Amino acid sequence: MTTTAPEVLSRLTRVTEKNGLPSLSDTLGRIGAFVSAELIGMEQELTTVPRREQIVGQCARHLLGLGGKRIRPICVALAGRMGTADPAVIRKLATAAELVHSATLLHDDVVDHGELRRGQPTARKLYGNAASVFAGDWLLVEALKRVRQARLPLVLDRLLDIIDEMIQAEAIQLECRGGVQADEATYFRVIEGKTAALFRWAMFAGGVAGGLGEPECHALESYGNHLGVAFQLVDDALDIAGVEEDLGKALFTDLREGKMTYPFIVGMERDASLTGLVEEIVGLESEFPNQLGSRIVASLRRTGAIETTHRRAVHHAEIGVGCLNVLPAGPARDALEAVASVAVSRKT
Amino acid sequence: MTTTAPEVLSRLTRVTEKNGLPSLSDTLGRIGAFVSAELIGMEQELTTVPRREQIVGQCARHLLGLGGKRIRPICVALAGRMGTADPAVIRKLATAAELVHSATLLHDDVVDHGELRRGQPTARKLYGNAASVFAGDWLLVEALKRVRQARLPLVLDRLLDIIDEMIQAEAIQLECRGGVQADEATYFRVIEGKTAALFRWAMFAGGVAGGLGEPECHALESYGNHLGVAFQLVDDALDIAGVEEDLGKALFTDLREGKMTYPFIVGMERDASLTGLVEEIVGLESEFPNQLGSRIVASLRRTGAIETTHRRAVHHAEIGVGCLNVLPAGPARDALEAVASVAVSRKT
Repeated sequence: MTTTAPEVLSRLTRVTEKNGLPSLSDTLGRIGAFVSAELIGMEQELTTVPRREQIVGQCARHLLGLGGKRIRPICVALAGRMGTADPAVIRKLATAAELVHSATLLHDDVVDHGELRRGQPTARKLYGNAASVFAGDWLLVEALKRVRQARLPLVLDRLLDIIDEMIQAEAIQLECRGGVQADEATYFRVIEGKTAALFRWAMFAGGVAGGLGEPECHALESYGNHLGVAFQLVDDALDIAGVEEDLGKALFTDLREGKMTYPFIVGMERDASLTGLVEEIVGLESEFPNQLGSRIVASLRRTGAIETTHRRAVHHAEIGVGCLNVLPAGPARDALEAVASVAVSRKT
Repeated sequence: MTTTAPEVLSRLTRVTEKNGLPSLSDTLGRIGAFVSAELIGMEQELTTVPRREQIVGQCARHLLGLGGKRIRPICVALAGRMGTADPAVIRKLATAAELVHSATLLHDDVVDHGELRRGQPTARKLYGNAASVFAGDWLLVEALKRVRQARLPLVLDRLLDIIDEMIQAEAIQLECRGGVQADEATYFRVIEGKTAALFRWAMFAGGVAGGLGEPECHALESYGNHLGVAFQLVDDALDIAGVEEDLGKALFTDLREGKMTYPFIVGMERDASLTGLVEEIVGLESEFPNQLGSRIVASLRRTGAIETTHRRAVHHAEIGVGCLNVLPAGPARDALEAVASVAVSRKT
């Protein structure tokens, strides 16, 4: 399968159009053309990864084939465009970012007994937990090999530290299972590790590949961190909308497993009765009654927690964009600003 | 916890005494003293790895605390002693070898629903599958960080290739699930990947750390490969003895999952009726009847397959020792020869 420039562009446009942001869609469309060579290279490289015919290869191919926003590779490519990067190196690093992300999804779905991802059955549902564990291990190794091939100073060491941080965040989250933890500090520690860390690395790696100096790379990392936090906060808020559609099965599974989302942390601070309702869910062995789900969401909405979550996301996106001030103005910086806007305005 | 030289020596002696090989025990005891500094360093470094108090850390600590033969670190240390290695570098590499091995055990136990390891409940039984998946991911990253810190040419790239080979072997094995595959070529491909690959890396890494040239490192790798194959063949033969003690639950679980062991491959070639019996087990949904287990083991014994397996192990150990001929004689080479002897003569 070969991915062409128009396909990549139309994907970006579809994503932004779905978000109902025609002007951003235009901007991103233009900037997408700007990094289309890198994105096409990354998509081509992704298709070469699962070369094996066995079930482990099929499992990896299934997940990679689900697509997704490819936001981490876009970050690598745009950071590279802030300087002058070798396209072959960017291709390796962008692919590595997507592979690390994919590896964590394969393991997360096993750990969380995930059934659906991007509207399709999870890889573990189709190919089994065993294949999903090994496919995750394998994509991680494939990612590290590509970073190694890039032969850039610090970038591999930084990625190993980042993966360590991601696992540490998973460890903290695992620790919280079975209880209602409305602790904002823990929440941000977890999402900075689970989500923002890899955005941080994507920006750092792209910057180093672009030949930027330490202050510039540091600024890109800070942008990546805030973008990742904003991205996760919006995911949390969008989950509540999802609750109203499917009666919250997925969300309440998360809550039961101790995965506290930001709207709930804020909501429980503002309305103590909400804590009681959430505790009922966490303690429940059986399926929760739909009525209870609806009551929880209604209570949550009344507290204004969803608006607060959105505001907090916008706040992080703004700080992230502010970090870019030390970098030269131009189409790459414009694109990074647009990415931050899309991240907080998206509806999916 | 600090490990002292006498503790390491007494561990080696216990292992060899259990094997009923007093002369080898003496040899290894002497050679153990020779690399005791490296082994003590490795044990100390292992205790520093699981620094986290969370369940993921406890999970990793449980597995590392089970001990085991530490044969891969011994390989690194002895290969290093064939040349002149920096003890700090050997310590990193020896620890990495044990960490990669431990990471694969943590994932294997999840994949195989393992209940017992080294006579203790598996980490996943005590701390759950989720903790075991993340603990495996984490130990892998800890291993790679240490290899990175060693800053030796080729050693990290080779380890990434080796881990890839290990996963590929798991993928092949997964493919064989649910059927009776008496294919010798596939069997050796799987054990060269699953077991021998890491022995190969341990010898290579130690050799590079020792400053040896390419032909010497290549000889050490070949030794490692044959040692690993011999080691796995002996494990397979010892499993049959285990069957007679515990009515074969563990072994027949392996067979059902398509993990064919060498004695069965040989036995089924020699006695077609054995294939029929094994197929009954593979197709069985419920617990297998003890009587059927006993019949299978009795049939297998009659074919002489266990003796053939031992002979094949000795053959590989001898080839491995032969590979060492290009290396200078001395206590390190003597020790490697002793390791090969112990590997094929052990009773546990």
